[in-house]
Amino acid sequence: MTNSSTRASVSVLGLGPMGRALASAFLTAGHPLTVWNRTPGRAGDLPERGATVASSAEDAVRAGEVVVVCLLDYDAVRAVLPATGWAGRTLVNLSSGEPAQARALAGWAAGWGIRYLDGAILTPTPAIGTPAAAVLYSGARDAYDAVREAMTALGGTGRHLDADPGRAAAYEVALLDLFATSVHGAAHAFALASAEGVAPGDLAPFAVGISDLLSEMIPRWAEQLRTGRFPGERSTVASAGATLTRLVQAASAHGLDTGALAAAKRTADRAVAAGHGRDGLARLVAATAATRGVPAPPSRD
Amino acid sequence: MTNSSTRASVSVLGLGPMGRALASAFLTAGHPLTVWNRTPGRAGDLPERGATVASSAEDAVRAGEVVVVCLLDYDAVRAVLPATGWAGRTLVNLSSGEPAQARALAGWAAGWGIRYLDGAILTPTPAIGTPAAAVLYSGARDAYDAVREAMTALGGTGRHLDADPGRAAAYEVALLDLFATSVHGAAHAFALASAEGVAPGDLAPFAVGISDLLSEMIPRWAEQLRTGRFPGERSTVASAGATLTRLVQAASAHGLDTGALAAAKRTADRAVAAGHGRDGLARLVAATAATRGVPAPPSRD
Ligand SMILES: NC(=O)c1ccc[n+]([C@@H]2O[C@H](COP(=O)([O-])OP(=O)(O)OC[C@H]3O[C@@H](n4cnc5c(N)ncnc54)[C@H](OP(=O)(O)O)[C@@H]3O)[C@@H](O)[C@H]2O)c1
Ligand SMILES: NC(=O)c1ccc[n+]([C@@H]2O[C@H](COP(=O)([O-])OP(=O)(O)OC[C@H]3O[C@@H](n4cnc5c(N)ncnc54)[C@H](OP(=O)(O)O)[C@@H]3O)[C@@H](O)[C@H]2O)c1
Repeated sequence: MTNSSTRASVSVLGLGPMGRALASAFLTAGHPLTVWNRTPGRAGDLPERGATVASSAEDAVRAGEVVVVCLLDYDAVRAVLPATGWAGRTLVNLSSGEPAQARALAGWAAGWGIRYLDGAILTPTPAIGTPAAAVLYSGARDAYDAVREAMTALGGTGRHLDADPGRAAAYEVALLDLFATSVHGAAHAFALASAEGVAPGDLAPFAVGISDLLSEMIPRWAEQLRTGRFPGERSTVASAGATLTRLVQAASAHGLDTGALAAAKRTADRAVAAGHGRDGLARLVAATAATRGVPAPPSRD
Repeated sequence: MTNSSTRASVSVLGLGPMGRALASAFLTAGHPLTVWNRTPGRAGDLPERGATVASSAEDAVRAGEVVVVCLLDYDAVRAVLPATGWAGRTLVNLSSGEPAQARALAGWAAGWGIRYLDGAILTPTPAIGTPAAAVLYSGARDAYDAVREAMTALGGTGRHLDADPGRAAAYEVALLDLFATSVHGAAHAFALASAEGVAPGDLAPFAVGISDLLSEMIPRWAEQLRTGRFPGERSTVASAGATLTRLVQAASAHGLDTGALAAAKRTADRAVAAGHGRDGLARLVAATAATRGVPAPPSRD
């Protein structure tokens, strides 16, 4: 443990799985730590490791130079944060939310003279405090500079994206979209495998292989979206559409929710209707727009 | 190139992206090769590399000891395959399909005295002929033994799962489910990012990180499904449900198809309704069953 006298005092508001992981990492890095949670009794071993448990959010704010908030959503943040007592402190909100919510909260903070930084945590709780951690920040540069050193306690890479406080949330919403949809796909695949008599442990190594394909595919898509060229040499939108027709039938025959597969099928159908059936799968990006007349812009650079 | 006189003669029916990759790998490994495709002119450089182009599927079958079929689906296979001319040959069907279709085609083949092996290719075209290739086989053991050596030309791991010809397709349907849903998630995420002003190239490195999380999550889920214990220490079904509510709103606000996110949200809601809100995400597997009364069995071992 590092000498705590050299470390900024930190408060963590919110002791869900992520809040606890953040608090633990600050303790490990030697920061004087105060924690608070709406429902008492969620501090686990943090007190015996040296954390002070505050009896109100106000007390927690007063106790920290760096005030980290990690709650379910921005509504919870709004419900919890006091408007006063912030002199010399920096608020770092690591709760998930939309860009517009981050901007609105930054506006609220500015109105009360609170230095505000927004952040998005991209890795799960076990990564916090390890080199694998990834947290994106956005908002005023001086707010980032004020907490930068303390935030190294969380490990891995912290990156300040932009002065726009909504920028971290813009990345996060897209990444959560990918995560939530893939998690649903994994859950659905385990259920479909079981229905077909394939045990989870037998499927898993091959399922990992599929997920690795995705890691390999993503940078290739990004390059195709940049250049606007979508070669169909590996596999085509039309072939994916045919596969999806079968998958919807198979899932439906086993009584599973077919909503995700049906959405993927609609997307392939829209791409085919746009004349892209023989192109590669990155053509699906623009076809995720629900209305044919309003295609999502695939590229900005 | 290896001396072709020691190699079994192979025919490949179907010259889509995958059929061409298979044909190329057989040529590279030194097999005398005949190819056929419904639409002429799709053989690319295969003829100049030594392949014979057959003018009918019948001719192609007659030319090969090992007859590999790789078409869009089983209907295409049914439309293409002759019933006679198979003496001493083995049919290896690497087209994607359902377990029931594989069993039905195996039945058809048995009726005509055709030695039949079903297979599922789990890797994309560039992997074929490299150590990264993965192909699962199922069906009569003697059919596998008859083609095993020729199939090493495809590279990587070939594995015979089971005498049930539908077994490879059972794995494949679940893996394609995961792949198709994740691909849709990736397409959707790139579109949502663009709508939020984040360019594909900026999102990609973080999106790869999300996909890597999935690779790490899958074996953990398999173990939890085996043991029936679903700890919520890292993240919970309830938190995922709250995130999904926001994601549906964000996607909808940008005019994107919300079908997949809505299906994921329904799944989280079903898990919460079953009393699993504070449990880990592997609880979502059983909740993918569309009807609450008919849960998908999460485990078989
Ligand atoms: N877990 C992860 O792997 C992970 C990864 C990246 C990002 N995140 C994000 O981190 C944030 C926290 O996630 P989490 O996993 O720790 O759990 P969570 O279930 O999302 O949030 C739980 C925390 O929110 C509090 N809370 C909820 N509603 C509240 C309200 N109305 N007023 C006051 N407090 C309220 C809970 O207090 P009570 O105990 O009193 O209910 C608890 O402290 C979320 O935005 C999540 O998206 C999590
Ligand atoms: N590409 C991949 O990465 C990949 C990976 C794993 C598995 N697979 C599976 O491999 C199989 C082939 O895939 P692919 O990527 O090569 O392309 P594909 O688009 O799925 O199939 C194209 C082939 O099917 C033929 N075909 C379609 N309908 C036909 C019909 N009614 N009668 C006769 N032939 C017909 C096409 O002939 P024409 O040229 O005359 O249209 C062409 O030879 C599919 O089942 C696919 O799921 C592909």
